[in-house]
Amino acid sequence: MICTTRIRARYQESDQMGFIHHSCHIVWMEQARMDLFRECGIDYRLFETEGYLIPVTRVTAEYVSPAFFDDEILVHAAFTHLTGVQFRIDYQIYRNETRLLGYGYSEHCVLKKSDRKPTRIPLSVRNKIKLSDTAKSWKTANMI
Amino acid sequence: MICTTRIRARYQESDQMGFIHHSCHIVWMEQARMDLFRECGIDYRLFETEGYLIPVTRVTAEYVSPAFFDDEILVHAAFTHLTGVQFRIDYQIYRNETRLLGYGYSEHCVLKKSDRKPTRIPLSVRNKIKLSDTAKSWKTANMI
Amino acid sequence: MICTTRIRARYQESDQMGFIHHSCHIVWMEQARMDLFRECGIDYRLFETEGYLIPVTRVTAEYVSPAFFDDEILVHAAFTHLTGVQFRIDYQIYRNETRLLGYGYSEHCVLKKSDRKPTRIPLSVRNKIKLSDTAKSWKTANMI
Amino acid sequence: MICTTRIRARYQESDQMGFIHHSCHIVWMEQARMDLFRECGIDYRLFETEGYLIPVTRVTAEYVSPAFFDDEILVHAAFTHLTGVQFRIDYQIYRNETRLLGYGYSEHCVLKKSDRKPTRIPLSVRNKIKLSDTAKSWKTANMI
Repeated sequence: MICTTRIRARYQESDQMGFIHHSCHIVWMEQARMDLFRECGIDYRLFETEGYLIPVTRVTAEYVSPAFFDDEILVHAAFTHLTGVQFRIDYQIYRNETRLLGYGYSEHCVLKKSDRKPTRIPLSVRNKIKLSDTAKSWKTANMI
Repeated sequence: MICTTRIRARYQESDQMGFIHHSCHIVWMEQARMDLFRECGIDYRLFETEGYLIPVTRVTAEYVSPAFFDDEILVHAAFTHLTGVQFRIDYQIYRNETRLLGYGYSEHCVLKKSDRKPTRIPLSVRNKIKLSDTAKSWKTANMI
Repeated sequence: MICTTRIRARYQESDQMGFIHHSCHIVWMEQARMDLFRECGIDYRLFETEGYLIPVTRVTAEYVSPAFFDDEILVHAAFTHLTGVQFRIDYQIYRNETRLLGYGYSEHCVLKKSDRKPTRIPLSVRNKIKLSDTAKSWKTANMI
Repeated sequence: MICTTRIRARYQESDQMGFIHHSCHIVWMEQARMDLFRECGIDYRLFETEGYLIPVTRVTAEYVSPAFFDDEILVHAAFTHLTGVQFRIDYQIYRNETRLLGYGYSEHCVLKKSDRKPTRIPLSVRNKIKLSDTAKSWKTANMI
């Protein structure tokens, strides 16, 4: 499954180059991740309430073309790797369906909130993660 | 007591006007507030650990002159009002000691972390709050 | 005219109190402002291209109830004051149509981009600003 | 040359996990980069005034240990790669000199401001970039 999130680029996200600041891609990827969780039936808010955290262990972003204030941004997100203790999500960021702005991925583990120690991904989450073969072929190969 | 915090304006804080985005004053005021707490002997981090929160109930900022990326910013902060349940901090924001960029204030109450209900300001904090008569006369009168 | 903007509260916008950070109201108000401009037929992006800037000269926010990560936020925005050189927009921020989270306003002037000096509001913009009597009665009276 | 930047982690940078949000590493790396430029004699602000931009073409961050609000953060930054048209900076992020929080790198090209097209790195900048062999061995090898 590939989940698509629509975001309007904010004025506050612009910088004095006249572009959207590169760090916003990281924030947009997170927003897309939360939508992906939701679409897969994972309630992230509930998951934290139940005593788990899903921090980022690695994030990477490549910039192809700048975004501008007021752009309609599309972020595609999909699970691409899964082991017993970690998973990876890949992202593509577009303007207006056609213009590729960048791509990237994030890697995650699961922590118990009580002691902040890593733990195996609970089955309730694991069973809902469906990997996308399409997303695996997104142009991140030569990025890594 | 008036506490002064030095901040280097970040590139990420600039916007496409070429100025520092106005919302950064709010964030800088918070940073100055934390330094003011520290200088008064209030350990905010410990205070939260002990089960209290100090949210903002009101914030206001007036902009006199724009800040630019890489500017050396000075934020002066001081307690200006105190009751049993709330207090106010006033701020002045300068570039390079001489150029007034703006001013503002924030109002705060204290919540118990457990139920997020307002509570009286604990004596341990209350006793450390010294109001500044100088800061009361900062040019916020006509602002409110 | 009252314009309504829908925003999903981002994880990045949360803070360690477990609330959405208060500075996000300022950013959300700006996003609502841009939507208000658009709905009134003012193309802010074009307006900058034509050589004008609309900085914030004053902003104020009052916090009634905290927002949380993943909340569906509604920001209502409307023009409430207009003179030859400045205007004011008032905002109400809700969660799920019914829960008031806060309100506030921003004041603005117009600068020429070339010399960053204030100028009269161009007629092309002025003529599109319709004041809202409803918004004038939003609970900011006792705030100011 | 390795340049070290000191940053106090802001409350606004914390998230509801109780950690500093991972996107802040990207912003801190930028702040360290600007200090590195300055220490090498490159005036980034002037560089933009002269008609150039230095966007990020790729950024990556690995997270080893969480940062917390009020931590004293140290970011070490150094140039590690240089060609005629691009360069790379590597970063290490520490708390209190001893605790490694994460590392990462950014890659950059140079654009002419007038047409936003890539250009060769001007000699005035190129001559000031001294690569650090130490930084090349920072633990990013297995990251890429």
